[in-house]
Amino acid sequence: MTPTPAKSPVIALLTDFGMRDWYVGTLKGVLLSAVPGATLVDITHDIPPQDIVAGAFTLAAAVPWFPLGTIFVAVVDPGVGSHRALLAAEADGRFFVGPDNGLLTLAFERVKHLSIVKLTQAQYWMKSVSQTFQGRDIMAPVAGHLARGIALRQLGVPVTRVERLALPAMQRRGRRLEGCIVHIDAFGNLITNLPASVLTPRTVVKLRDRKARVVSSYMEGRPRELVAVAGSLGLVELAIREGSAAWVLEAKREERVECGEA
Amino acid sequence: MTPTPAKSPVIALLTDFGMRDWYVGTLKGVLLSAVPGATLVDITHDIPPQDIVAGAFTLAAAVPWFPLGTIFVAVVDPGVGSHRALLAAEADGRFFVGPDNGLLTLAFERVKHLSIVKLTQAQYWMKSVSQTFQGRDIMAPVAGHLARGIALRQLGVPVTRVERLALPAMQRRGRRLEGCIVHIDAFGNLITNLPASVLTPRTVVKLRDRKARVVSSYMEGRPRELVAVAGSLGLVELAIREGSAAWVLEAKREERVECGEA
Amino acid sequence: MTPTPAKSPVIALLTDFGMRDWYVGTLKGVLLSAVPGATLVDITHDIPPQDIVAGAFTLAAAVPWFPLGTIFVAVVDPGVGSHRALLAAEADGRFFVGPDNGLLTLAFERVKHLSIVKLTQAQYWMKSVSQTFQGRDIMAPVAGHLARGIALRQLGVPVTRVERLALPAMQRRGRRLEGCIVHIDAFGNLITNLPASVLTPRTVVKLRDRKARVVSSYMEGRPRELVAVAGSLGLVELAIREGSAAWVLEAKREERVECGEA
Repeated sequence: MTPTPAKSPVIALLTDFGMRDWYVGTLKGVLLSAVPGATLVDITHDIPPQDIVAGAFTLAAAVPWFPLGTIFVAVVDPGVGSHRALLAAEADGRFFVGPDNGLLTLAFERVKHLSIVKLTQAQYWMKSVSQTFQGRDIMAPVAGHLARGIALRQLGVPVTRVERLALPAMQRRGRRLEGCIVHIDAFGNLITNLPASVLTPRTVVKLRDRKARVVSSYMEGRPRELVAVAGSLGLVELAIREGSAAWVLEAKREERVECGEA
Repeated sequence: MTPTPAKSPVIALLTDFGMRDWYVGTLKGVLLSAVPGATLVDITHDIPPQDIVAGAFTLAAAVPWFPLGTIFVAVVDPGVGSHRALLAAEADGRFFVGPDNGLLTLAFERVKHLSIVKLTQAQYWMKSVSQTFQGRDIMAPVAGHLARGIALRQLGVPVTRVERLALPAMQRRGRRLEGCIVHIDAFGNLITNLPASVLTPRTVVKLRDRKARVVSSYMEGRPRELVAVAGSLGLVELAIREGSAAWVLEAKREERVECGEA
Repeated sequence: MTPTPAKSPVIALLTDFGMRDWYVGTLKGVLLSAVPGATLVDITHDIPPQDIVAGAFTLAAAVPWFPLGTIFVAVVDPGVGSHRALLAAEADGRFFVGPDNGLLTLAFERVKHLSIVKLTQAQYWMKSVSQTFQGRDIMAPVAGHLARGIALRQLGVPVTRVERLALPAMQRRGRRLEGCIVHIDAFGNLITNLPASVLTPRTVVKLRDRKARVVSSYMEGRPRELVAVAGSLGLVELAIREGSAAWVLEAKREERVECGEA
């Protein structure tokens, strides 16, 4: 039932380690020791330290574009060494390894087939496990075993309840939709949880008392004008042409964004 | 006529996406889905947002060192979703995909054989194309097709006129050369458009009223002394030993630099 | 005697180039031209400019996790173009190329078999060698030759004395150990040169007049409490849970840290 990963497997990494230290290099050394010739891909290592929500959103945004069989290793893990569990999962033919703190769960949201195990089988880990770097000692070795064809169920015990993120959901209030900013990207674009399908030329999108005009590309905005576009994730984004909406508006994640007909 | 790319092709990426979000990871996922086993190389994703000149300079500096057959995907694209064209090109055996905004053109400057097409054949793109992330939806898929051996001419229509950058050229004024700073690197070295071949021990290089002494390596400078060296791109560079000339002098790109005999 | 590197060799890079310019991309282009299909790994390019000590510590921390046969190219080289030598080395089955300024030496500390040569054989370099980018012109080409099976001894002349770093050693003073901060990581954790084996529940670790409580994982700390943990390098680390000990304490590398029984 579980598909085996490809012969030259892709292992994609997402962490909050930054690139300044040896942490990312160490993960890669462990993975290449286990799976010579693996294709290692950095999604990012610049998740803000311990920001599980940003990590979860970023991971979920990238996952659908990777080949089936890809193994994702996600480490944003403020609870390292505590009693939080570590998970491995298979979701519609892609594989995941990470802590049970919500980091993986946005990537599971629209999948059809999902199996999750809690990692318990220490024979697939480093012999000696530190309390401070379990990416190296447990998660990378487990990803290596998955890449070499070990079945998910051999790694631990099946679980159905995992930690989930407490993200505000979009609300319908009469003819208005009320959502919020769920992510701010490096360009300062404000990504909301409102589906892009709501946008029509007559739609008005509001952040505080600022109305954003609906346009079809960033460049249609006038200088300093706040515009709303159908973003590449299928979500409404607020942006300022050749500028940073986040910086100009001092916008924060979870701020309310409303949407309705003019 | 057009050489086919290698079996295990190198695809080199240059963008202004930063590494914090899922944008780069998404490009890589698309490329690895199209070309399993491709060798993906990050030139940089830290081009200052929408700085086409910095992107063009950086790309042109890296290109000659890559193997023939390499496919470069360059995305610094403030006009995404507007009417700017997208291009694919072959220049002396290397391939390029990027927007028609000057980003690619410095890399074409000294090539012998150059073919450029404007991308028009949507069957080589994602089925659904967003107005905000055409790196993912058009450029990466086109690079994937090039890597799999599709000929350049199948991707669109030949063009000969493309957007070029309005960069100040070096001027000869009697026995003096007048150029400018064309790039400031991360060490704060000031890279000019003056050819390194002009440097002799008697040369004087001037930035504003500061004279830079000609030395053969950075370490020959005295503390805080501005020196001129033959840089690794074959251009005159101004530098301060173990310091940042850009920071000390608050130097800016396009500032005039003069060069003559003492 | 000298093992040959693997067929699809891993070449791991550590530099202070940053990722903003073409320098890293250029190294990779040179390496992929020499060794098509090589697996290139970035350890980091964010070593603070010209900080040889940070480079040496970071390299030494990553090396043991990489497969045998890996070739490490390390470039933190303020003396580029001066009379400092360049080295290639083999240490317990892994290979190294870098400047003779101490950068490589921490990685050699606990190895059993060590051979070092000073690079002298210019036929393994670029034909034209710049005075400002010898990573590109000498070190990457030499790494390429190592990856293709050239023996170390062909690259230059054996040397036994190389530059070493003047790092403070740990001192034993009666029943106390006196060490120092040897690295500050991107999370702000203070990594000392005290071996983690000294930590018992009764141990007291002191930085200035602050006592750090010994815990077994970061999460056991109370908010804003300074704790001491057995870090993943086998060294005592001082940390503040979900915060930066470096920032809170304005701690600096080489500050004294003491350790004794309560």
